[in-house]
Formats: sequence, structure tokens, C-alpha cells
Amino acid sequence: MASLRLSSLAARGVVASAVSRPSPVAVRGFSTSLTRRQNDPATSADSKKPTFAIASRLKDGRALALDVWSVFNAANLPQDCINLGQGYMNFPPPVWARDAAEEALRSVEGNHYAPAKGRLRLRKAIKQFYGTQFGKELDPETEIVVTSGANEGQYAAFTAFIEPGDEVIIFEPFFDQYLPSIAFHGGKCVYVPLHPSSEPAPNVKIGKQSWTIDFDELRRAVTPKTKMIVLNTPHNPVGKVFTRAELEGIAKIAEEHNLIVMSDEVYESLVFDGLEHVRIATLPGMWERTITVGSAGKLFAATGWRVGWLVGPPSLIGPTTAATTRIVFCSNTPMQEAAAAGLEQARERGFFEQQLAEYEERRGVLIDAFEKLELEYAWPEGSYFILLDISKVRWPKNYTFPATIEGRGRDFKASWFIANEIGVSSIPVSEFYCEEHVAIGENYARFAFCKDLDTLRRAGERLQRLREYLV
Amino acid sequence: MASLRLSSLAARGVVASAVSRPSPVAVRGFSTSLTRRQNDPATSADSKKPTFAIASRLKDGRALALDVWSVFNAANLPQDCINLGQGYMNFPPPVWARDAAEEALRSVEGNHYAPAKGRLRLRKAIKQFYGTQFGKELDPETEIVVTSGANEGQYAAFTAFIEPGDEVIIFEPFFDQYLPSIAFHGGKCVYVPLHPSSEPAPNVKIGKQSWTIDFDELRRAVTPKTKMIVLNTPHNPVGKVFTRAELEGIAKIAEEHNLIVMSDEVYESLVFDGLEHVRIATLPGMWERTITVGSAGKLFAATGWRVGWLVGPPSLIGPTTAATTRIVFCSNTPMQEAAAAGLEQARERGFFEQQLAEYEERRGVLIDAFEKLELEYAWPEGSYFILLDISKVRWPKNYTFPATIEGRGRDFKASWFIANEIGVSSIPVSEFYCEEHVAIGENYARFAFCKDLDTLRRAGERLQRLREYLV
Ligand SMILES: Cc1ncc(COP(=O)(O)O)c(C=O)c1O
Ligand SMILES: Cc1ncc(COP(=O)(O)O)c(C=O)c1O
Repeated sequence: MASLRLSSLAARGVVASAVSRPSPVAVRGFSTSLTRRQNDPATSADSKKPTFAIASRLKDGRALALDVWSVFNAANLPQDCINLGQGYMNFPPPVWARDAAEEALRSVEGNHYAPAKGRLRLRKAIKQFYGTQFGKELDPETEIVVTSGANEGQYAAFTAFIEPGDEVIIFEPFFDQYLPSIAFHGGKCVYVPLHPSSEPAPNVKIGKQSWTIDFDELRRAVTPKTKMIVLNTPHNPVGKVFTRAELEGIAKIAEEHNLIVMSDEVYESLVFDGLEHVRIATLPGMWERTITVGSAGKLFAATGWRVGWLVGPPSLIGPTTAATTRIVFCSNTPMQEAAAAGLEQARERGFFEQQLAEYEERRGVLIDAFEKLELEYAWPEGSYFILLDISKVRWPKNYTFPATIEGRGRDFKASWFIANEIGVSSIPVSEFYCEEHVAIGENYARFAFCKDLDTLRRAGERLQRLREYLV
Repeated sequence: MASLRLSSLAARGVVASAVSRPSPVAVRGFSTSLTRRQNDPATSADSKKPTFAIASRLKDGRALALDVWSVFNAANLPQDCINLGQGYMNFPPPVWARDAAEEALRSVEGNHYAPAKGRLRLRKAIKQFYGTQFGKELDPETEIVVTSGANEGQYAAFTAFIEPGDEVIIFEPFFDQYLPSIAFHGGKCVYVPLHPSSEPAPNVKIGKQSWTIDFDELRRAVTPKTKMIVLNTPHNPVGKVFTRAELEGIAKIAEEHNLIVMSDEVYESLVFDGLEHVRIATLPGMWERTITVGSAGKLFAATGWRVGWLVGPPSLIGPTTAATTRIVFCSNTPMQEAAAAGLEQARERGFFEQQLAEYEERRGVLIDAFEKLELEYAWPEGSYFILLDISKVRWPKNYTFPATIEGRGRDFKASWFIANEIGVSSIPVSEFYCEEHVAIGENYARFAFCKDLDTLRRAGERLQRLREYLV
């Protein structure tokens, strides 16, 4: 049981902290107990212990700070709190995919090193999965690389292409791993916020908040040092599915300035309301400059398999493969077989359609709860996240927050209050913003609906008690 | 079958190339077809394709060069060649360990994210595995981190501690991943060669080559910029097990200059002839400055599980955990369970003793073959590699080598010749040396004995035909 508990804790929405015990004073930013302990021998219990300078890339990448995942970690929340904070499923992957891992485990080869670029069976399955969407079939030898989750793949692409001083444009709010992954390579993140608007979403009839790009702002973000734009559609945490017109706008800028585009499409199978998932690499001229990112973890409810991939032209995949070869050598073999079986059989089994319908139902439960509360939220066109506008939530004046929450955005307080008093955990969204833009994020909490219906229904019921605390 | 083939190819002794098709002209060093193709639009088939500069760390880390694993890749060798080049087993891991992975796969949690620092069950098993060897029990929360193979763990430790310009001392010949792992972080490798001597090994009675450290040379290698010494015992590719006296000598230097020691002990379960595997972290004062590296892949004949770990003081493990959290987030969950089961049960099952006896028998087969040939070799005190002195091998004057071999060390020629004419592949050892010291490596080929007895016996018989080509 203990192990079950711990693994759920740090399983994520996505990032668990390196620091297991939150420091007594949490400071947003870089200076945490960990840094202090190590750089200042005076605070060390035993001052004769040697001290070693930590590489500055860790500080630059916010990697030593007490992160949101540690603060809103199940261990710090009431035991019966329903966890909609972290983005992992509480249901299993399909048996027919998993079975291929068991088969691999019963062979010799299935237990040994895979080729650095991935098992051929999986690369062929990836080729088949994308079909001719890019105007051609993929070459499994030069245009596909299997990685240890999408995360490590994206990291390796930065290793291959980001030189210190290079600028990378990321849209805010951003998947929090982007920042350290770029900063560890000396890259500078340049932040372009998505803007919440009460205009109906461009894609859908339902009149709820949509989040849009200000293209002038995007253009102004480009400098001679810009090397890459990182895109995420469907988007975590906004739930936005970028429109073809938006992607064309981004593509135009990328072409004008000869930028690489990294298109993080890990939630591609979760696009609702009959919307279209457009891959930017399929737009004219874009194949040659785009790295498209996929994840078996998200496609098959198997976040712990750690199998992801990148596809793109050899000029981008070759160096990225060279990087991942040195970072991890290869992804694990048995789960590559499971991912291959998943991709091989998903379509004929109607798996993605069925999964989508299930997620649509899950989404409905949370939406209903928010509608009943008459709260604003970003309409989740895709992914499994909903951003709830928590600006109307008011906690009692004398409510006391732990030290880890004091001094952080009001969203940290709201999420903390909701988790502790209502019994449903979420993730405060200011964590997904740079310092400068924290104020935008402070109005939102992210709720994940990658949970079974029963859990979501219980959460929806509990959330109704929030009404007492709304202005 | 195709997939079986490909995976063997790039499975390793350890590194497959990023470039799947060897370029027609192989150049030792950095400028390969890949680099040329990408940096020089003129040689590109379609000169309108965009080009993107590859980060210089890839070049600095030799990561774009055509590496030895690609040259001596099964695809380039005769089909019936017996592969003793690459260091993966042709037998499976123990069933009772593997079963735990299957059990995990049948649960929900066993398919989802593990905590970034590793599953608690595995961390507890690691704690139990090391016992009180370090003069205390390990704290699973702060002194252990599970990584995606030892490889990624070592990489993450460099991410955490190596600042550009820092120097890292590595002994030659070195496990080839060290070089890129250090160079990718702007670190500078400082090479201290081990020296073959025909004196009997200090450890053993059997009078064969042993390789020794010149401590004056080691001292001279230390500068104010030295940050770390990387140690590997039992050693790949030499098979050397460092003596307590040698480790004390290294420890003394590390303490004098306040250096971190990374002790790569992935072959710890393979120490022959009743020798002692000494962990440098157990020497007085060394715990606080040592990162000890382990690998489930090597302990349990499961290189494809990609589960490794680092243990050490919180000051070293904390920042390394922060780094690995950002690089891969976590290692895969099902194989962590298998590794945990392996560690939990290995001792009571007598697994390591039995495995050691099997490897000792395997080693014997190759040693017999080399003895019959009256060739010199480094006595393998540990690991599963034997360095054969190939300086007496002479191939016919008119023997033709492919372009990938021309211009490289004579060991490349000897290994090529032996693989093609004798039918046993090995790895030329100059690849594990810096440019300056290539001449030492040129006299050796590395043969792996992590293969079943029958395979090794057939190899031993074939190798007798080498007699015709000895001077
Ligand atoms: C937007 C986004 N990209 C990438 C990832 C990482 O995916 P993987 O688990 O395959 O590493 C996540 C995981 O939450 C994500 O939300
Ligand atoms: C000396 C040494 N260290 C580390 C490793 C990497 O081990 P793992 O497969 O656990 O990443 C190897 C693999 O060959 C090795 O020989």
C-alpha cells in the first residue's frame, strides 16, 4: 500500500518534485531549501561535509524550486481528497496492447536493448499511424525516433538544436517541463501568452471562454536569436485546439524567420466536438521545419510506459536521435512492443473513437458541475484538462494557509482552499507562466478529467459546495 | 524477423549510431556525412530545403561521428558472424523478476507514472541491496534515485554538477557514453590511461596482463577546474577490478582537491576469482563525495528494461533527481517493479552466485580459446569483457577493407578481418580512447562473453583459425 500511495503522489499532471519534503518556507522562484542547504555550508548540519556547486542550469531551469506538484501533492492534502490535479489516468491501458509487452517479456530479445532509434516494429507502426498525412509516408530509418516518453524526446530535440543564447518561443500557459528543458541547454524562453476572451471559441458554437493568440505579439517576440517555436495542440492546460488559420499564421512566421517548429501533439487523440486536429507539419512547406511529438502514454492511458516519439525530416530527426542516444541510449523494449501493438490495432478496433467518446462523457461531468456553479471556464476543445476561472472564489478572511502557499499567487490559495475544504484537488495555473505574466494565471485552476466517471461525478457533487464561497 | 534483426544490430556493447546507413567515407572524428549534409546546403539534394544549425555540443561530444557500433553493426557483417561485439546477453532475465512486471501491467497503477525519484518499492529494495555497506542504511527519500538505465542516471548527474569548463577525469579506455555525456554539458574530459603491464595482475595469481594506474599521471591530471573523477569498477572494456589500494589512492586525491567521484559499478555482480568488489563510497570520508551507480540491466540480464539507479548523499542525489525529473520525468513503471522483485529475491535465491558461476564458465571458454592461440589478453577480473591483444594478427597484404575502416586504427582492421574471415565479431578498442592515446587502444579488440556457452564454444573454435594469421 505504501508503494501504491507514493507512486500516486508523484504521478503527475506532470511533475513531482526532486525535493520530497517541502521546505518550511516556500518561495516562488529559485531559492529553496535545497539550494540554500547546498550552497551555504553554514546552514549545513555538519559543516565539515564537503559542498559541491550545483550547475547553474538547474537554477536557470527553475529545477531547484519547490514546484506546484510538490505543494499539491496528495501527501499534503486531506486523505480523501479527490485528485483532479495530476494528469494521469485512474484506468488501465487496453489489454490487447499490454499483452504485447508480456509477450516481449517472455522472449530473450524483448528484455534487451532496443536500437537507439527505437524498435523497428514500433517505427513501422508509427509510420502506419501517420499514413500519408504529411503528403508522403514516413521513412522509419530517418524520419522517426522513439524516445523515453515525449518528455525525453522533446528534451533531446533541444539538446540537438538549442545553443546557449538561442531563443525559443513558447505560448503561455505552458507545459511546465518546457522551461527547464530549454533552460538546461542555455536557451532563453520567450513567452507569448494566450489570451482568454469571452468571445465564443472560434471553433465551436458553445459560447464559453476561448483563448487566442495575438499575432502582433507573436511577431514582436521573434528576434534574430529565435531558433524555435514550441506549439502544443491540443493544449495543456487550456484545452485549446489550434485552428487551421492559427497554425497557418504561426507557419508563416516560422517560414519568414527560418524557425524550427516543435509541435507537441501528445493529446491528439482527444479532440472533441467533431473538431479537426490539424498538424502544422502538414501545412505547405512546413514538413521540413517541424518536429511532431507523440506519446503512447497519452494515446493508450499508459503514462508509465515511457514511450514517445518524434517525427520529422532527417535534418531534424538525425541530430535528435544522436542526442537521445547519448542521453538514455534507448527507450525500454517491452513497452515499445506494447506501444507498437497499440498503434497497429487501435484503428481496426475503433479504440480511439471509443476512448474519445468516454472522455467526452468525462468532460461532460465536470462541465455540468461548473455550469451549475455558473462559473466561467475555458471550453476544453481537446486534451483532458479544464481551466476553471476561480476569480470569484472567496475563502473566509481568517482562513489560514500553510507556509508553502503564502506569498504565491491567489490561485495557489484558491486551489488549496478547494482541495482542503471542498475535497477536490486541482493545479493552480500561475505555475505555467513566467514571472511577468503570473497575473493572468492567477485566475485559473486546472482540473483533469482523465479519471473514471464515478470519481468525476463525486468530484462534481462535492464542487457544488463551492457555491457558498462565490461572490 | 526483421525487427529481431534490427534490434540486435543496434543493441550494444553499447551504442548504435544515429546515422543508420554508414556514410561512404568514414572519418574518425567529427565530420561525417550527417554533419556535412546538414550544414552545407550545397550538398543537399534539394537546396531549397531549410537548414538548421546543430548545437555544437553534439560535435563536441563526438555524437555526429560514425561510431564503432555502426561500423561493427551486424548489418555490415557476414550473416553468420558470431556477435561478441555488443554487450547485451543472448539469454533472458530470471522469470521470477520478470513476473513482477507482468503483475504490474495487470494493475492500473503499474501502467502509470512513477514518482520521479522512483517507485518506493524499488527504492526500498535498493536500500536493502546495499544494506549497511556505507556504514549506515540508505534513506530511500533522499539518498536513492532511480533512473532510465545507469546511462541516463550518469547523464543526469553531469547535468546537475558539470558547469561549462569544468574538467572531469576519466580513465582510458572508457565506456564511450562518458565522453558525450560530459561534453554535452560543456565539460572537458581529461584522460588518464590505464597501462597494460605484463606484470601479473595485483589481485590474482594467474600471470596475465593487468592494467594499472600511474598515480603521478593521475595527480598531474588534476587542475583547479577538476570537478569530478569517473571511475568504473569492474571495468568495461578492460575487465579490471580496482583494488582497495588503488581506490584509496583515488580517494586521497578526491579528498585533497574536493572532487566528486562517480563510481560506475554496473558490473558489480561479476567479480571473479573470489576477488572483492570494493565500493569507493565505503572508504573513510568518501560517502559524502561519491555517487555510486547501479543497473538492473546488468544485474539481471535485462538491458532493455532501462532501469538503473544512483545512490549517494542528499547533496549529490537531490540535484541529480532534479535533473532527471526534467530530462525523462521518471523511468518506466512496470520494469521498476521487475527490478524491485529482482533485488528483493536475488540473495535468498542465490541468484548472483549462480549467475557468477555461469559467467565464470563463459569466461573460461574464451580464455581457453585465447590460451590455445597463445595470445596475450587482459585477465578479466570482472565484467563480461576480455581485451585480446591483437598486435600479432596479420592479414594478407592485399586484403581489402571497406571505406568505413580505412583511415582508422589498425584495431579496426584487425576486428574487421576477424569478423569477416574468422566469423567472430569484436569491438576495436581505440574507440574508447581520446585522439592522443589512440595508439594504446589500437593493440586490442574487446570480446564480450555475455552469451550462452554454446555460442561461446562455437566462437572459440572458429577463433582457432586465427592461428594462420599470427606472426
Ligand atoms: C503537453 C505535454 N507534452 C508532453 C508531455 C509528456 O508526455 P510523456 O508522458 O509521453 O513524456 C505531457 C505530459 O503531461 C504534456 O502534458
Ligand atoms: C561501464 C558502463 N556503465 C554504464 C552502462 C549503461 O548501463 P545501462 O544499460 O543501465 O544504461 C554500461 C552499458 O554497457 C556500461 O558498460
